[in-house]
Amino acid sequence: MPFGKPRAERADAVRNREHLLSTAREMIAEQGVAKVTMDGLAERACLGKGTVFRRFGTRAGIFRALLDADERHFQEQVLGGPPPLGPGADPVERLVVYGRARIAFLMDHHAIARAALDRDRPIPFGDASLSQLHIRTLLAQAGVRIPSLNGVAIQLTAALEGPLLLYLRRPEAGTPPEPEVVEFLGDGWQALIERLTR
Amino acid sequence: MPFGKPRAERADAVRNREHLLSTAREMIAEQGVAKVTMDGLAERACLGKGTVFRRFGTRAGIFRALLDADERHFQEQVLGGPPPLGPGADPVERLVVYGRARIAFLMDHHAIARAALDRDRPIPFGDASLSQLHIRTLLAQAGVRIPSLNGVAIQLTAALEGPLLLYLRRPEAGTPPEPEVVEFLGDGWQALIERLTR
Repeated sequence: MPFGKPRAERADAVRNREHLLSTAREMIAEQGVAKVTMDGLAERACLGKGTVFRRFGTRAGIFRALLDADERHFQEQVLGGPPPLGPGADPVERLVVYGRARIAFLMDHHAIARAALDRDRPIPFGDASLSQLHIRTLLAQAGVRIPSLNGVAIQLTAALEGPLLLYLRRPEAGTPPEPEVVEFLGDGWQALIERLTR
Repeated sequence: MPFGKPRAERADAVRNREHLLSTAREMIAEQGVAKVTMDGLAERACLGKGTVFRRFGTRAGIFRALLDADERHFQEQVLGGPPPLGPGADPVERLVVYGRARIAFLMDHHAIARAALDRDRPIPFGDASLSQLHIRTLLAQAGVRIPSLNGVAIQLTAALEGPLLLYLRRPEAGTPPEPEVVEFLGDGWQALIERLTR
C-alpha cells in the first residue's frame, strides 16, 4: 500500500472539514453569521487554529465552503431528488418549482453569501451553468421552439440569480431580504414561465 | 453676490472634470483601458496630479465617472431621445429595442466596468431601478396584465443586466464578450418579450 499514508491523511482532512462545516452551521444557527470567526470556530470544534486556517484560508473561506456544500446539495435535489423539483414531473411544473426553489435558496443563503464576499475573489454564487442547462432542457421538453433558446436560457438564469447579485453588490445589503420578496419574485417567475410556455 | 467665489470654484471643478473625462475617452480610444493611469491622465490633460486625485480618488474612480456619465447619456436617450428607443413608438417595439440597446451598452462598456471594479465598492453598473421602472411601464402600456408585474419587471431587468454581472465576476473576464454574444442575447430578449406580450 504505497499510498496508505497520504490516503489516511486525506481521509482525516475530509473528516476535519466536515466537522468544521457542521460546527460552523451550528454556530450560525445559534448566534448568526457575524459571530463566526476563525478563532471561535477552532475553539468550538476543538481543533487547532492552524487546521482551520489550512482548510479555509480566510474567514470568508469558511462561508464559501458552506455555500459550495449547500449548492451541491441543492443540485443533487434537482438532478436526482423527488419530483416535482427532481425528475419525473411535467416540465412546466418543474420549471416553476425550480425557479421558486432557487429563489428561496439564494435568499436563504443571503447572509452566508454576504459573509463569503472576499475582496480578492469574484462574487460567490455559483456556477450558473447548471441552472442554465436545466432551464434550457426543460424549455425544450415543454415544447418551446425558439431559435434563440440558448439566449433565453441565459436570460432566465440571470432572472433568477440576478436579483440576489444586484442585492449583494449594494453596500447596505447587510439586512436580509423580506420573506415577501421571495414570494413576490416566485410569482413573477411563475408568470414569466407560464406565458413563455403557453 | 455672497456665493460668487464658491460658485466660480465649482464651475472650474466641473470644467476640469469634463476635460479629464474627455481626455480619458481619447486615451481609451487610442490605447485601450489598460494604458490609462492617474499620472498619464494628468500629464495628457495638462493638469496637476492633485487635481486628478481630488476628482476621482483612485484609478478605478476615473472609470466609474466615465461609466456614470455614459449611463446618464443612455438614460436621456431612453427618456427623451428619438423613437423607437425614446418615446413615441409602440410599447412592444420599444421594449425589444430597449433590451437590445441595453445589452449593447453593457457589453460595449465591459472593459470600462471591469476597470471600474474596486475592492472596497460594490460592483459598478448602475442603478437598475430606472431599467425596472421603464420595463414595468412599457409592459403595462402593452396591455400585459399579471398581478406580479413588479416581480416580472425585476426579473426582466436582471435578465438584461445579469449576464454582464455574471460575466464580470469571473476572474478570466479580462477579454471582451464576442459580438455574437450581443446578437444572441438580443435575440433571446426579443423572443422573451414577444412571448410575454402576445
